Amino acid sequence: MKTPLTFAVVGGDMRQAKLAEMLSADGHFVYAYALEKADMSSSAVIKTGLQQALCAADCVILPLPVSGKAGFVNTPVSKEICSLDEVFSRIRPNQLVCAGRVDDNCKKIASAYGVRVIDYYAREELMVANALCTAEGAIAIAMDNTAITLCSAKILVIGFGRIGKLLSNRLHGLGADVYVSARSHADHAWIRAYGFKPLHTYRLGGLLSDFDVIINTVPATVLDENLLREVKKNSLLLDLASKPGGIDFASAAGLGLHVIWALSLPGEAAPITSGAIIRDTIYNILREEEEEKH
Amino acid sequence: MKTPLTFAVVGGDMRQAKLAEMLSADGHFVYAYALEKADMSSSAVIKTGLQQALCAADCVILPLPVSGKAGFVNTPVSKEICSLDEVFSRIRPNQLVCAGRVDDNCKKIASAYGVRVIDYYAREELMVANALCTAEGAIAIAMDNTAITLCSAKILVIGFGRIGKLLSNRLHGLGADVYVSARSHADHAWIRAYGFKPLHTYRLGGLLSDFDVIINTVPATVLDENLLREVKKNSLLLDLASKPGGIDFASAAGLGLHVIWALSLPGEAAPITSGAIIRDTIYNILREEEEEKH
Amino acid sequence: MKTPLTFAVVGGDMRQAKLAEMLSADGHFVYAYALEKADMSSSAVIKTGLQQALCAADCVILPLPVSGKAGFVNTPVSKEICSLDEVFSRIRPNQLVCAGRVDDNCKKIASAYGVRVIDYYAREELMVANALCTAEGAIAIAMDNTAITLCSAKILVIGFGRIGKLLSNRLHGLGADVYVSARSHADHAWIRAYGFKPLHTYRLGGLLSDFDVIINTVPATVLDENLLREVKKNSLLLDLASKPGGIDFASAAGLGLHVIWALSLPGEAAPITSGAIIRDTIYNILREEEEEKH
Amino acid sequence: MKTPLTFAVVGGDMRQAKLAEMLSADGHFVYAYALEKADMSSSAVIKTGLQQALCAADCVILPLPVSGKAGFVNTPVSKEICSLDEVFSRIRPNQLVCAGRVDDNCKKIASAYGVRVIDYYAREELMVANALCTAEGAIAIAMDNTAITLCSAKILVIGFGRIGKLLSNRLHGLGADVYVSARSHADHAWIRAYGFKPLHTYRLGGLLSDFDVIINTVPATVLDENLLREVKKNSLLLDLASKPGGIDFASAAGLGLHVIWALSLPGEAAPITSGAIIRDTIYNILREEEEEKH
Repeated sequence: MKTPLTFAVVGGDMRQAKLAEMLSADGHFVYAYALEKADMSSSAVIKTGLQQALCAADCVILPLPVSGKAGFVNTPVSKEICSLDEVFSRIRPNQLVCAGRVDDNCKKIASAYGVRVIDYYAREELMVANALCTAEGAIAIAMDNTAITLCSAKILVIGFGRIGKLLSNRLHGLGADVYVSARSHADHAWIRAYGFKPLHTYRLGGLLSDFDVIINTVPATVLDENLLREVKKNSLLLDLASKPGGIDFASAAGLGLHVIWALSLPGEAAPITSGAIIRDTIYNILREEEEEKH
Repeated sequence: MKTPLTFAVVGGDMRQAKLAEMLSADGHFVYAYALEKADMSSSAVIKTGLQQALCAADCVILPLPVSGKAGFVNTPVSKEICSLDEVFSRIRPNQLVCAGRVDDNCKKIASAYGVRVIDYYAREELMVANALCTAEGAIAIAMDNTAITLCSAKILVIGFGRIGKLLSNRLHGLGADVYVSARSHADHAWIRAYGFKPLHTYRLGGLLSDFDVIINTVPATVLDENLLREVKKNSLLLDLASKPGGIDFASAAGLGLHVIWALSLPGEAAPITSGAIIRDTIYNILREEEEEKH
Repeated sequence: MKTPLTFAVVGGDMRQAKLAEMLSADGHFVYAYALEKADMSSSAVIKTGLQQALCAADCVILPLPVSGKAGFVNTPVSKEICSLDEVFSRIRPNQLVCAGRVDDNCKKIASAYGVRVIDYYAREELMVANALCTAEGAIAIAMDNTAITLCSAKILVIGFGRIGKLLSNRLHGLGADVYVSARSHADHAWIRAYGFKPLHTYRLGGLLSDFDVIINTVPATVLDENLLREVKKNSLLLDLASKPGGIDFASAAGLGLHVIWALSLPGEAAPITSGAIIRDTIYNILREEEEEKH
Repeated sequence: MKTPLTFAVVGGDMRQAKLAEMLSADGHFVYAYALEKADMSSSAVIKTGLQQALCAADCVILPLPVSGKAGFVNTPVSKEICSLDEVFSRIRPNQLVCAGRVDDNCKKIASAYGVRVIDYYAREELMVANALCTAEGAIAIAMDNTAITLCSAKILVIGFGRIGKLLSNRLHGLGADVYVSARSHADHAWIRAYGFKPLHTYRLGGLLSDFDVIINTVPATVLDENLLREVKKNSLLLDLASKPGGIDFASAAGLGLHVIWALSLPGEAAPITSGAIIRDTIYNILREEEEEKH
């Protein structure tokens, strides 16, 4: 990967701002557009207009998620409004375009302009590192919203995917009594091998009454009204799953349960780490693109 | 220890309210005074006046710390004002009086009325359990006030007393790169044996520049202006030591450093666990008092 | 799964003997053949001839690995010689046959008799649980064959598959300075998230000189003569990979390095746990077979 | 501490030989006597007679334990016989004499010659580091002598001193279900805070029947015949306590229990680490002696 490169960082939240600063600190030229409310005063990042930013770039980095309103770049820390058309219409063939969580509409627009968009959010290394941010964020939320210590607390983690794996590891390190639900025999073997207690995700009935904290990571309704009736009133229910979530929120509210649905934790809980994750992933992409050329 | 006993819980914060509820849930008769703003609606605790509370009690439990303003019981969740004289003047010889962090003034007043006050805050088991609450509270603060994950962060814990021991254990469990400072060769051996890296508390000069988080637990100024100059600007400095703390706060402010002085974490971060700790300690005291009689 | 069932346990090592005892302790009828040198005196397992064992069985359990010499059942704790033909020729259609690590020759013989053989060694839950036995066994070997503590030792685990994952977890828990090599960016992200240090499996050159222990889990030559030259003389090299192993053993010997090639650890290091793993896997198979019928 | 110094290493086991090599590798002049069966061929250590070794030394290092047969230096890897008289009679006033586990007889002889002997075994930092070696050695023994994995095993550690603290920490890291017995409420609070389960050392009756491994660290009989009757037959009983040990060995033998009494683990399980521990402690002693002079 040749150095220095020129990057255009367009839109996004604090992560994108941190990403711009870190790319610049690595010796690259960085143009930023639509990040003006994020404080980057101390860095060498050049704040500029869209045209100038795109013009000079070897690599254009669009946010995570790429789209805010349909057809527009997600620009939460900016007053600028910028359509995906405006961006993609200016991309030249030799420019690399990276974006996060590329939706169908975005794909359609890009393809209309013949632009190849690489989705860095689809990269496994980013998902794993993001899962870690989510796991830590979830622990902070659990600590902040319970009147007990997590040490000695009886905690259920529903699901043993990336987030479930890291969350159960951390909770065990904090001295909690950790139960993890999963569906496959293989996952149960892993759960046991790590010193946690396995339950079956779809056979939780009758087992929920004395958990102090229940954290869902499965993006499908697991805790329906029947199961929620078992949960004790002073439990904390924390849902980390993207829409539609894994908890029947209406029933939970009706039962007076304490539910928190926490989305987008990486960007909120650890924007610097999240920015660094995107940077590392972009570097991996650039290196692989270069290798493929040869 | 005979059961059920009658307890008077007088003053205090949410911990004391939770304590009253838990004593009641254990089958004891519990009178509470000066806790009316704490919600105990669902429990069998009897809210009453001071006289009635004290009158029936086998054991009178005063708060932690026992004194608010000098000479008065600490009553932060009450509009009642209650002097220590009022309390001690009503104590009968066969009643056991327990209080937390008994200061000299309180001792003097008690002794003027011939009342023996047992300081449950002086009990080692309470201090250890409280240190755990403090360690967890500190971790939540560190997570909430940094833009990075604690995993992979370079963290210094100053001091290897109760809090330092538990805090370093938890941070290691969260994947941090943990350094602990202490003064004795023996503590350094412990620090190494637990897999952390030892530093000398009074030889930190030249070593502070790349810590992401520095947490002090030593109640004497360790981080003076000279050392603070070494700390990088986006570090988090967290002081858990009681007054006067271990950080030169004025210098830190002058240097633009991010400092948080977190006191009284057990009661704030985990009032239920903290209440349970006091309950268990009171039970231990009662058992020992009974054993001594025989 | 109907209970009690009748099992025939034919051949195998201590694991198979323990398996027979545990099946019997669970209330099943168990016939054992070709396990006579394993002490099962205190159990209700019926030692018998091949014919009688097979005749009554709902489920026939062959060993792991199923074959000793080609065409013969593996019978290391027996003086009996028993061909796979003898076994499969006696199997009736309604009998379930389970065997471990079923090789092509065994498959051919079974199919000649129209017998379906289920390979319990191919089940992911067994492989994970076995990996744990291997990881613990490797730790015991490392402790027994080094003159240092694993705490503070610098250790490299090559490969981040099942064994690599569990081994690095355990070594970290023992206070070692753990490096793990893997090839994918995603694995590197996992390695970092668990608090270990990632290296690239095929870019270890120049990095090997100060490891105290190097443990290979990859079944392909990773440590060739060039890399082995870097290893310090008092290191321990432990190879857990099945044939051909991951270390150039001839070169290592020539260089005077201390190499241990440890195979079949589950059965040797933890025969009871290994027997229990096979039992649980057989139960899972039986339950699934039953479910498929309905 | 001035460098280089001249050391005489007299007698001892592999630890002492490793110590001599490490002192030499640090740039000191090292004379070794009565260590000829230990292989130190590759080092710059000078093997010599007693007289010459003592003559040149700034610091004389005697073994751990200092005495073999009463009145004689402990020389297990030598054919030399060397009395304490021979050593102490040759010590000059400006020489520092360090020895391990100095018994009354040794003290008496030293004092007859006016020699001050510093007992490095009495130093807390050495005891802690040694406890770690013992804990690891105990884990290797437990792994080697059970047919199960320690992961998921139910294990009791009796005593929460140095060894108990480190052993329970390690076993927890290996995924065991860890119970620790201690007597004080404070220790119980620590045990809970680390995520283990507390029991009372002298109230174990009725609780011992399903432990897979029981490890004693208390040097007073804890497991008498009555308690041993509760222990299940295939448990492993491991005693780490110095004489008289904590298990009634005769009763255990009578009951057919599997007991291992493991003494002197640091020197056996990790002679290099143990040698390094003694070296570090000697350096600490030298530094403190120098500081006191000024």
